[in-house]
Amino acid sequence: MDNQKDSPIYGIRPVMEALESGMKISRVVVKQGLSGSLVSELMVLLKQRNVPVQYVPLEAFDKFKDKNHQGVVAFSSPVEFQNLEHILPKLLEREIKPFILMLDGVTDVRNFGAIARTAECAGVDAIVVPAKGAASMGSDALKTSAGALNHIPVCRVGSLKITINLLKQHGFKVIAATEKAQKSPFEANLTGAVAIVAGSEDTGISPDIIKLADELVRIPIFGKIESLNVSVATGVVLYEVVRQRLL
Amino acid sequence: MDNQKDSPIYGIRPVMEALESGMKISRVVVKQGLSGSLVSELMVLLKQRNVPVQYVPLEAFDKFKDKNHQGVVAFSSPVEFQNLEHILPKLLEREIKPFILMLDGVTDVRNFGAIARTAECAGVDAIVVPAKGAASMGSDALKTSAGALNHIPVCRVGSLKITINLLKQHGFKVIAATEKAQKSPFEANLTGAVAIVAGSEDTGISPDIIKLADELVRIPIFGKIESLNVSVATGVVLYEVVRQRLL
Repeated sequence: MDNQKDSPIYGIRPVMEALESGMKISRVVVKQGLSGSLVSELMVLLKQRNVPVQYVPLEAFDKFKDKNHQGVVAFSSPVEFQNLEHILPKLLEREIKPFILMLDGVTDVRNFGAIARTAECAGVDAIVVPAKGAASMGSDALKTSAGALNHIPVCRVGSLKITINLLKQHGFKVIAATEKAQKSPFEANLTGAVAIVAGSEDTGISPDIIKLADELVRIPIFGKIESLNVSVATGVVLYEVVRQRLL
Repeated sequence: MDNQKDSPIYGIRPVMEALESGMKISRVVVKQGLSGSLVSELMVLLKQRNVPVQYVPLEAFDKFKDKNHQGVVAFSSPVEFQNLEHILPKLLEREIKPFILMLDGVTDVRNFGAIARTAECAGVDAIVVPAKGAASMGSDALKTSAGALNHIPVCRVGSLKITINLLKQHGFKVIAATEKAQKSPFEANLTGAVAIVAGSEDTGISPDIIKLADELVRIPIFGKIESLNVSVATGVVLYEVVRQRLL
């Protein structure tokens, strides 16, 4: 859940104005079945900005009943989202090879924060998350990230698949960390432009994303429990990129 | 705090009997100023078995007031402690080089559990913790470790310094992960018998332990927050051992 510090914005017009003014919005809650031309306009804006929308029954608005919410509540975010297409040219111009982390289905706020913290330390240039099915980017995520989310760009994209294809067109090698792999990250060449894809602890990366990856890697596991925490596993892969680049 | 599942044992004799029967005890709470010959006997037993003792004021026993505790309460542990000196000969006989993780001052139960989980996956042979100043090995630690603490030996020792000297005598290279290091773990040779020492997030490894280490290593950090989570940092070092041994 979002922390109370993430103060909500109530009503269709106020939310549209917030979006147009460039305010950082983590997600918007919309009453199921809400319609009208203004609502359609709002939806276009939300889609353009890749803001996650949750459709909820009227009862879910009970806690906002003293507000003029009109069936729409937006939550501001302490995290500043950036547009990957704006960042990419700068990364590609640079002498240091670009280093991107993409998260597929990491919905747990604590895991997301922990991963962001590690990514910031490892020198990742940007974290790419899907507009739908990402962790809530509220103040809890910021806190768990030890402030890292104030420093590392987070890019919300409409489709991870389209983004992967875009990255591949720009010469990125897309590496998916999955238990289905044969190879260890230590055997992959990670010295060029890379996008590391990590999935959730329970379901992993979705099959259609795995299909698009250039290489699959799996962290070798020797024990009996066979389950690394997703932030530790991501840390091991990110630091293998660091190691290969330092040598 | 320990979970309710860690059922306590009340009273001097019952605690002594539990210790003598080989029951797994995570810690014993003793009333400040408690004395007598039986208490002295208990203290000898506790010291022999490296069981952590906490001296607390009488008020702390209020919650046990309907029990005949006599100023002594022991908490059983789901973790089975092992004697390092019993394990060591087996590890040294083996073809695979021994791999030990030593924790100095990691008192946070969640961090301890997360580290144990990673260590079990990386194939660590034993985790060494000090009898004083280690995390409580209750069911919360077991849970955070995703069950790893049921599979990896945990050795409580009276003195980390004496243990380090013992390990060095047996040909171990002792590697301390500390921010004070110049070298990265990627530059150290970790292919022989190794003991990796990790410290707490706030204070790190104590200076007298650092002095005893054969090598100091530091994970390179590129971001602004400059703070890796201790379980992620430990994971990166443990998996560098794995990588070097696999190649």
